[in-house]
Amino acid sequence: MPSLRNDRLLRALLRQPVDVTPIWIMRQAGRYLPEYRETRERAGNFMTLCTTPELACEVTLQPLARFPLDAAILFSDILTIPHAMGLGLTVQEGIGPRFARPVRTEGDINALAVPDPEQDLRYVMEAIRLIRKELDGKQPLIGFAGSPWTLATYMVEGGSSTAFRRIKSLIYDRPRSAHRLLDTLARAVADYLNAQTAAGAQALMIFDTWGGMLTAAAFHEFSLRYLRQVLAALRREHDGQRIPVIVFTKGSGGWLEAMAESDCDAVGLDWNIDIGEARRRIGQRVALQGNLDPAVLFATPERIRTEASAILASYGQGPGHVFNLGHGIEPEVEPDHVRVLVDAVHELSAPYHR
Amino acid sequence: MPSLRNDRLLRALLRQPVDVTPIWIMRQAGRYLPEYRETRERAGNFMTLCTTPELACEVTLQPLARFPLDAAILFSDILTIPHAMGLGLTVQEGIGPRFARPVRTEGDINALAVPDPEQDLRYVMEAIRLIRKELDGKQPLIGFAGSPWTLATYMVEGGSSTAFRRIKSLIYDRPRSAHRLLDTLARAVADYLNAQTAAGAQALMIFDTWGGMLTAAAFHEFSLRYLRQVLAALRREHDGQRIPVIVFTKGSGGWLEAMAESDCDAVGLDWNIDIGEARRRIGQRVALQGNLDPAVLFATPERIRTEASAILASYGQGPGHVFNLGHGIEPEVEPDHVRVLVDAVHELSAPYHR
Repeated sequence: MPSLRNDRLLRALLRQPVDVTPIWIMRQAGRYLPEYRETRERAGNFMTLCTTPELACEVTLQPLARFPLDAAILFSDILTIPHAMGLGLTVQEGIGPRFARPVRTEGDINALAVPDPEQDLRYVMEAIRLIRKELDGKQPLIGFAGSPWTLATYMVEGGSSTAFRRIKSLIYDRPRSAHRLLDTLARAVADYLNAQTAAGAQALMIFDTWGGMLTAAAFHEFSLRYLRQVLAALRREHDGQRIPVIVFTKGSGGWLEAMAESDCDAVGLDWNIDIGEARRRIGQRVALQGNLDPAVLFATPERIRTEASAILASYGQGPGHVFNLGHGIEPEVEPDHVRVLVDAVHELSAPYHR
Repeated sequence: MPSLRNDRLLRALLRQPVDVTPIWIMRQAGRYLPEYRETRERAGNFMTLCTTPELACEVTLQPLARFPLDAAILFSDILTIPHAMGLGLTVQEGIGPRFARPVRTEGDINALAVPDPEQDLRYVMEAIRLIRKELDGKQPLIGFAGSPWTLATYMVEGGSSTAFRRIKSLIYDRPRSAHRLLDTLARAVADYLNAQTAAGAQALMIFDTWGGMLTAAAFHEFSLRYLRQVLAALRREHDGQRIPVIVFTKGSGGWLEAMAESDCDAVGLDWNIDIGEARRRIGQRVALQGNLDPAVLFATPERIRTEASAILASYGQGPGHVFNLGHGIEPEVEPDHVRVLVDAVHELSAPYHR
């Protein structure tokens, strides 16, 4: 593998000094880019895009060709694991993910087998190898997975949800079954992420998208416990390099300390919390990623710079900050606004690293 | 007016001793009740239900006829104010609210006039007078309004939203226009709530449903500031009785202290935060309302009791707690489960008030 020419992301995640604050953007390879929509059209459907390594590689690299971002993130879906478990995933624009065979009964839970990533999720590993080759050391590549809790919500609900009736009934009425399901998923997520590392992912991120739907007590019991199980099972070094792991729970403001104690290297923040306050609470233990309100990218260039500057100032002096949005970029964002943000972060952050 | 026979709610909101913890439920007059669906059908559409005092009174009283709840809450919609401002509200099941004439331009904002509640929202005041007469002192009646920020989101977006693109563009790019809109709304909300008090509301609640979509800084500037303006303009006594005011922001875990300093009497909590922790943070200043995960009502009666018990234990000894869900009741809830909850709270809370 060629040596890495831009190691800002990896250094910031390990709280080592950098020249400027690194930035990448959740869903940076996505619908706001016309070239993504073109490839997506050509693929025919979303799952073909995910399962064809050449196409996944192509869209992964698109934002890097446009903007001086400090990392690539694998283009994929958090639901590849349940798909590999045989649940039959389809993703329709405007409707979201749907499983043909959701997990409802004890039998459904017991029948789930942990996939072999190099067999059942080979297309992901192929995509990673291809992307690493194409990146040629220009930027590091982030691999990712959904958290066990977040995967469970989709698998039990059968798709997206707002009330989470089925999964919540499971945890409240049949907690032992929920724990069995989550344990299987934690093993699957760990295997999947370890395979991504072996294939070439240089940092990892775990998306606990729906952890914030839980009470504090249920978050600890049904989400955090399995995040910790995953983290404990990850190989944290590869080829002599530390593989930093970022965990992200939307709505985690109340549990930042617990997140920081999960043995991750960095905590991703949504935009509700002031990053300076988050640093005071947990910044001595982990790096922080975030946390611009995604809606700021709808604003004028001037305002984008002002808001980016406010976050850099709030985080303050020294390393340990990876700039990002507090949630995925919206499809209606003007691509030029992303350039404004990336340039602003690089330019305005230099004084904080002297 | 007849004297109030059940004053638990008012006492708890003022942190005075009670025999048991009072309970009411957000959206207690709603679609989970077959008798509500019957009245709603008869009304033809939702707005007729809101604007016909006899029908609004009928559905307000329905849950009280079934369950030993400690308060009635006016049946209405948070969007009556913009409707009275001429925006043309329609509410369709499964789609949500829509305004025929959303607020987009400077001209739209400048054209908004503060409604005269006894003229333009007379149907609400008539409903309150009717409900008070029918309640005949059995329980207190809670009046309510949306917060200025929450009303602004609907008025600018034209309905419900997930990305809040238009309202966020307004606050980021045209903050002075946003402030003008919010100032008008704060005056309208205060007049409306004062009129509700004059008509007979014995406690008030302000729903800041979408405050949690903001960054901490923007919450202070665009939501909390106008909550404070409303609170400062409210008449807090009527007929020699203190009129307690509850404020509720979904996703307010990061700003509880600021909410408690807004001059409200009680803070409503969503279900993400542990109520014991909230009490330690702000319980010496305000009463707390909440905060059962609404999804617990999908669980078995045994589990409902266990979860209610956990919240009572977490709040602990002494007054200042009004039991409620952390958000509105879901339409699919079995009505009998509400009875289980109400009975559990009354029965299990007695030891905490000895």
